[in-house]
Amino acid sequence: MKPKRFALTPGEPAGIGPDLCLLLASQQQPHPLIAITSRDLLTERAAQLGVAVSLIAVGPDNWPNQPAAAGSLYVWDTPLPAKVVAGQLDKANAAFVLETLTRAGQGCLDGHFDGMITAPVHKGVINESGIAFSGHTEFLADLTHTEQVVMMLATHGLRVALVTTHLPLRDIADAITPERLERVTRILHADLRNKFGIAQPRILVCGLNPHAGEGGHLGHEEIDIIEPTLERLRNEGMDLRGPLPADTLFTPKYLEHCDAVLAMYHDQGLPVLKYKGFGAAVNVTLGLPIIRTSVDHGTALDLAGSGKIDTGSLKVALETAYQMAETRL
Amino acid sequence: MKPKRFALTPGEPAGIGPDLCLLLASQQQPHPLIAITSRDLLTERAAQLGVAVSLIAVGPDNWPNQPAAAGSLYVWDTPLPAKVVAGQLDKANAAFVLETLTRAGQGCLDGHFDGMITAPVHKGVINESGIAFSGHTEFLADLTHTEQVVMMLATHGLRVALVTTHLPLRDIADAITPERLERVTRILHADLRNKFGIAQPRILVCGLNPHAGEGGHLGHEEIDIIEPTLERLRNEGMDLRGPLPADTLFTPKYLEHCDAVLAMYHDQGLPVLKYKGFGAAVNVTLGLPIIRTSVDHGTALDLAGSGKIDTGSLKVALETAYQMAETRL
Repeated sequence: MKPKRFALTPGEPAGIGPDLCLLLASQQQPHPLIAITSRDLLTERAAQLGVAVSLIAVGPDNWPNQPAAAGSLYVWDTPLPAKVVAGQLDKANAAFVLETLTRAGQGCLDGHFDGMITAPVHKGVINESGIAFSGHTEFLADLTHTEQVVMMLATHGLRVALVTTHLPLRDIADAITPERLERVTRILHADLRNKFGIAQPRILVCGLNPHAGEGGHLGHEEIDIIEPTLERLRNEGMDLRGPLPADTLFTPKYLEHCDAVLAMYHDQGLPVLKYKGFGAAVNVTLGLPIIRTSVDHGTALDLAGSGKIDTGSLKVALETAYQMAETRL
Repeated sequence: MKPKRFALTPGEPAGIGPDLCLLLASQQQPHPLIAITSRDLLTERAAQLGVAVSLIAVGPDNWPNQPAAAGSLYVWDTPLPAKVVAGQLDKANAAFVLETLTRAGQGCLDGHFDGMITAPVHKGVINESGIAFSGHTEFLADLTHTEQVVMMLATHGLRVALVTTHLPLRDIADAITPERLERVTRILHADLRNKFGIAQPRILVCGLNPHAGEGGHLGHEEIDIIEPTLERLRNEGMDLRGPLPADTLFTPKYLEHCDAVLAMYHDQGLPVLKYKGFGAAVNVTLGLPIIRTSVDHGTALDLAGSGKIDTGSLKVALETAYQMAETRL
């Protein structure tokens, strides 16, 4: 059987991404995992952290077939234009960050990797460097020519996908169209089957309004848009429940019997997910032709080089990518 | 010391409210607790449930000064116009429900009770009877001539108050005005001091938009409305943190060091609260001149008379009212 290989992008070099990769190397991974970054950066950061990690150079000419031993880390060396000081952003290195993402994403498309796991980038410094960049998700959608992606966060026992993501609150109601809701639901349903191996996924769908509109007394989008769209998709055989009130849906009675929750917007679905999964949540991009998971935290510039960081979210991101690659249809 | 007395309204007579009161009577309360409802109704429901409860008639001429013994319940008899069948709404009894609320609320205003605890009413049947009624909260605001009330839900370790409550999502952004935010914040702050005995309450305030607007990239209400309003109130000495992103605010790092969260709207704040406090959450109306707490569930008509109900939320509602009456300044 062909070994499964995974790409890990440490993201912003001045943040905690390199630290996370180095700390992770103390334990052996179940699959070959390849950090795509500068080898010199990792050497310096390891010295700063006082951790001993053996860096093993790999690349398109010598992909590894076995996991690196504990204490070792595979690195696909990607040169840095400017020397990095932990905690200090430098726009001279913005193109480097994107190059590591391109290597990982293209490597997945080309079959070198079975999935990619991303540590945080810093959107601000990339844009300041003159490169328009709105995030990992959009970058990978472009790279893979994907029209629509879906953001899903997951932790043990709960997955929450979003119909809309980073929109001002006042723009959300108009963004919930039958077309968008159908597209997002189809992607979520297909990826729960294809990437998570759930034969007949059950999805709980939130209403848009409080109490899911209370029969039209608190808004009409449930009646006009959500219910007819769900009904149409149910007729194709999808197991979709709702629209349900968001404040009662996130209770054991409902959650114990579902595979994912579809929330209409960011602050409806993510507070519970992050409350439940604190420090151990993972961000999964659905709809891509590749497997991509990510930590759910930021660059934490002030903690870079300190060693006072928690690899919990990265471990869940790795675990999730491995599981997806294994159960993928 | 004057004994503290509390009023308990079972609400809709065909729902589980009477059952909850009867089941509760198996344990002694720390204070005299007086159910305001029909004695005949309680007698019949007790027979249906197969529980033995001794009903002790009390009223304005003979308020009790000691808690009822376990197995006994004080009742201020309030006659029912029509016979009740468990599970079947009857609009002939709508005025009765409101009479029990008036007795409880006026009794608090007159100093007979130190607080009132409400089981659920059924809004629909009251309105069908021809009486305009939008809920307990509004009814009690009218009765006590209170201009603005604030809805707060609480469970062990978390309190969440709302700036807006039952509004369609598309109307929320325009409802977040400096005037409303200031009014709600003042009521929350004053009641945490006066009714919960917290000398210097710390309040975490959510942003309106995802990521609290991310510096204006995801909406401007934080910059234009929330920040200046909080700053003005901070200058008076209030300890207000935020606006913070709702999806990271509900994590131990923040919650361990606050007395309440102020969410901008229903589905931003309540999913976490109800997830955390499942079956043991209480609804507290702030801003009233009286203490009023409520269970956080509905009439559950299908369970009335079955005995298959959980008194968890009612117990927390009682406990909270007792604590508030004891710590009240």
